[in-house]
Amino acid sequence: MIAQTPSPPYYAVIFTSIRTDKEDDYAQTARLMLELAQQQDGFLGIESARDTLGITVSYWRDLASIQNWKQQTDHLVAQQKGKTDWYKHYKTRIALVERDYGFDLQ
Amino acid sequence: MIAQTPSPPYYAVIFTSIRTDKEDDYAQTARLMLELAQQQDGFLGIESARDTLGITVSYWRDLASIQNWKQQTDHLVAQQKGKTDWYKHYKTRIALVERDYGFDLQ
Repeated sequence: MIAQTPSPPYYAVIFTSIRTDKEDDYAQTARLMLELAQQQDGFLGIESARDTLGITVSYWRDLASIQNWKQQTDHLVAQQKGKTDWYKHYKTRIALVERDYGFDLQ
Repeated sequence: MIAQTPSPPYYAVIFTSIRTDKEDDYAQTARLMLELAQQQDGFLGIESARDTLGITVSYWRDLASIQNWKQQTDHLVAQQKGKTDWYKHYKTRIALVERDYGFDLQ
């Protein structure tokens, strides 16, 4: 659930969104995009949560792997559908992870 | 809901967590920490969502403002309680936001 990422530096794509109430094939497409992302070169992990706001953070080796994923054909179709049907608002932030630390209950 | 952050560069603190089933004063403390964070110098915004996983992303002007918030006294107490009571696992990632772009439904 919490992504097992390597030691920094690596990149994070923080995608924050508010959905419309259109369902269509949103859930199916979201599952497909998750599967496709995981197959991309440079993919390191993903974390996702939604209540009113949705936040998905995907982790990548470098900017080139993020750019390749952004231009992947099926993903381009989904991005377009996101704008026309599924999202009221979204924001994408590309960020270089410089440090990380964690805690696991023993 | 989606944070209105200034133009990059700025910093993101990505806090991903899995809760225990202990409630205690978690909700009250979470609200208090949100209020306190917003009063910190350098605070730019915050986004939060939880279903199985919780993701909170707070945005900051620079590393110094993140460090000051990490060391804020009440926040230190809450961090300790997080480890002993509220979280099974968490991971914190400090990331420099280099680019952002968005979409708003007209």
